[in-house]
Amino acid sequence: MAEEKHMREAIRLSLEMMLAGKGGPFGAVVVKNGEIVGIGYNQVTSTNDPTAHAEVVAIRDACKNLDTYQLDDCEIYTSCEPCPMCLGAIYWARPLRVYYGNTKEDAKAIGFDDQFIYEELEKKLNERSIPMLPMLRNEALKAFEAWQENDQKKEY
Amino acid sequence: MAEEKHMREAIRLSLEMMLAGKGGPFGAVVVKNGEIVGIGYNQVTSTNDPTAHAEVVAIRDACKNLDTYQLDDCEIYTSCEPCPMCLGAIYWARPLRVYYGNTKEDAKAIGFDDQFIYEELEKKLNERSIPMLPMLRNEALKAFEAWQENDQKKEY
Repeated sequence: MAEEKHMREAIRLSLEMMLAGKGGPFGAVVVKNGEIVGIGYNQVTSTNDPTAHAEVVAIRDACKNLDTYQLDDCEIYTSCEPCPMCLGAIYWARPLRVYYGNTKEDAKAIGFDDQFIYEELEKKLNERSIPMLPMLRNEALKAFEAWQENDQKKEY
Repeated sequence: MAEEKHMREAIRLSLEMMLAGKGGPFGAVVVKNGEIVGIGYNQVTSTNDPTAHAEVVAIRDACKNLDTYQLDDCEIYTSCEPCPMCLGAIYWARPLRVYYGNTKEDAKAIGFDDQFIYEELEKKLNERSIPMLPMLRNEALKAFEAWQENDQKKEY
């Protein structure tokens, strides 16, 4: 079954790259028309990049290879259910669907508590553990007005 | 006021880089001990990277400059309330606090509907507009078991 072959590649990356010291045990591949067009594995600690989760790396790789910022007609295979950051990245990249192996409960059991972030997202801005404070909205709005008036803009 | 100076730099980036054709009207800076240690602006369309939002770019830049994957004792100034992807990235980077200019309602008013993603995150996996399908969990779990058994691992 083609889908299982792709998932096994994501799983292979999750195990081998972790054992190679690249980062946590997470891998992902992006597939288009049955072909792998991007790969990723966690490399947070080896590249000093907290955003270098498997899915984000795979999305960036696929977009670079396909010369686009939208993963139309693509599928993402990830060895673990995406964290909120990766899920956000997936929505911006807009693939057709996502297959995942481990669940976020499995991730929590080995020390990766994505659930904490999911719960924080549901809280009001001023009740979060990382405070989020408004400032200078009237000045910031000017860039938004300029965006609306800009007839050269490339929407995404 | 130092905080306002930093926010004005984020706002300057949001406007000038958008007008320069880099992407949407969003800018961010990371500050540590009163100094800017990383900058970012939206470059989704100019770099073909759907994850290249201002906050993600600024976090990656600051981590590279500080040679770390954790933004201890840092503040993030962003010209707009973060989307779910960026909020996730912020939680993984763990700064002290976040200041923001425009709200997500302001973003929606000019066509950036982060609220849609926030709503999707609250849905069950099988009710989302991008379907998320489980596959081969038992095989994927092996990498998690190997992580737990790995006494060389670098936790994050």
